[in-house]
Amino acid sequence: MSLLTVGSVAFDAIETPFGKTDKIIGGAGTYIALSSSFYTKDQKIVAVVGEDFPQEMLDTLASKGVDLEGLQIKQGEKTFFWSGRYHNDMNSRDTLVTELNVLEHFDPIIPASYQGVEYLMLGNLSPQVQRSVIERLETRPKLIAMDTMNFWMEIALEELKKTMALVDVLIINDEEARQLSGEYSLVKASKVIRAMGPKYLIIKKGEHGALLFHGENVFFAPALPLEEVFDPTGAGDTFAGGFMGYIAATDDASFDNMKRAIIAGSALASFCVEKFGTERLTDITREEVDARIEEFVALTNFEMVQTVG
Amino acid sequence: MSLLTVGSVAFDAIETPFGKTDKIIGGAGTYIALSSSFYTKDQKIVAVVGEDFPQEMLDTLASKGVDLEGLQIKQGEKTFFWSGRYHNDMNSRDTLVTELNVLEHFDPIIPASYQGVEYLMLGNLSPQVQRSVIERLETRPKLIAMDTMNFWMEIALEELKKTMALVDVLIINDEEARQLSGEYSLVKASKVIRAMGPKYLIIKKGEHGALLFHGENVFFAPALPLEEVFDPTGAGDTFAGGFMGYIAATDDASFDNMKRAIIAGSALASFCVEKFGTERLTDITREEVDARIEEFVALTNFEMVQTVG
Repeated sequence: MSLLTVGSVAFDAIETPFGKTDKIIGGAGTYIALSSSFYTKDQKIVAVVGEDFPQEMLDTLASKGVDLEGLQIKQGEKTFFWSGRYHNDMNSRDTLVTELNVLEHFDPIIPASYQGVEYLMLGNLSPQVQRSVIERLETRPKLIAMDTMNFWMEIALEELKKTMALVDVLIINDEEARQLSGEYSLVKASKVIRAMGPKYLIIKKGEHGALLFHGENVFFAPALPLEEVFDPTGAGDTFAGGFMGYIAATDDASFDNMKRAIIAGSALASFCVEKFGTERLTDITREEVDARIEEFVALTNFEMVQTVG
Repeated sequence: MSLLTVGSVAFDAIETPFGKTDKIIGGAGTYIALSSSFYTKDQKIVAVVGEDFPQEMLDTLASKGVDLEGLQIKQGEKTFFWSGRYHNDMNSRDTLVTELNVLEHFDPIIPASYQGVEYLMLGNLSPQVQRSVIERLETRPKLIAMDTMNFWMEIALEELKKTMALVDVLIINDEEARQLSGEYSLVKASKVIRAMGPKYLIIKKGEHGALLFHGENVFFAPALPLEEVFDPTGAGDTFAGGFMGYIAATDDASFDNMKRAIIAGSALASFCVEKFGTERLTDITREEVDARIEEFVALTNFEMVQTVG
């Protein structure tokens, strides 16, 4: 089934303890689309770039089955640019530069050919822009997932709540869950947040894995223990893309299938952090992903065989 | 099979954001023995207390099948006392008071009736004391597990390494693993540490679960997501006690059984944090533990059914 991704397609400049990059390609929409393209070839994107964005990456996305009709190229304008520096633990970072450029007045136009799309993934963007996409779809997708970040909780909380009320799955990290709910316990936070609208909540905990909450059910997927995290940029978006790509490809939004989709997203995210930017994501093979999913099975599988004690 | 636990039996005074206690019963040996007694009734303890230690807790331990012949009661002396205050996130704490008292000159005497014990759990104590217990056992136990802490890495690293070289399983937390190895990545840290002796390494990550490393195998068990952590004191010892109690009760030290033992230990630890001190540990029922283990199964269980993409 078809998946529509909305999100930034951008330039990043990244510093980690392992090195630094010049301007490279990044953006939530890019990571989501590249990741979900591993599972679904029926994908559309709504995004905006400036005339400085390289045709090569657009060709790469197209070659992976991403329909680019909804990607606006603004002549005479520049692509969104973010620059950040990671701390030694790789779990926190400082933003050095944010240049909104084309994102400042982004109007997400939905091509007529996109109407009827079955699944919608709203990457991190202003909640107003995210909501306008939902409102411009003539039929509601089967499942709408949404990412957001603390920035919007600070400057646009009411708008964020209006958008959250319209989505099925919210995907945020543990700090954001605590900030949004005012609760330190993630179990308590999940109840507060789900009362705001989303029936499903995924809390990403970086190297500590991810939790899925729905009703009274909780599922936990670890992150794969890695020798080295080279660059965490885009790992959360890659996770979300793998998750929604898997759901769309299987056309199954049951809780049990969401568990599989979380493992699928976690496997793809474990590749993303191996190199700078999107580099590793563009060349993953089926064999590599299958092998990594087997690692997740081995990592988490146990069977209680008897009553002891 | 029989399990010998060595560890402090002590008094604690604890402050958490939820309240504070007067002197209550604590100590690694106490938590380990109470926890492992859920799985094995054939348990012995080597420890030391002062004349101020309440007979009531000794009776409780005896009622749970703990052989107290190796527990020394020093007349005219006082029991080890520790006092600490947890920060708001419950993941870090400050030590307010440490009074070694009877622990200062602790000589771990092994009663003749303890010889031939099959499993040995060395709770956190000076590495010299831990090693002397191993040396005083006439036959080597089938499996020796050991806990330690950063304090010993700072003041007695060479002694610690000598003891580590003699044990099978080392159980430490993530910060301690990083300190001991000089590696931030836990995968890298696990290799450095296992090269020091222990073939099995368990890294406890508190609310983020625990990792078991052996050869090329890794197993991860999450902590149960809880509404409230009331008092984390003793959770790590409870985990270790449940782990070794399960291994001793099943007389099976295979990797697959260690995975089950880690789930068993994690389940018991999830009870420990619900109340101050050892309170919750003394009244857990079989039904409660079974139900909690079922929660772990539901939390982590997934099945990849098809190749997608």
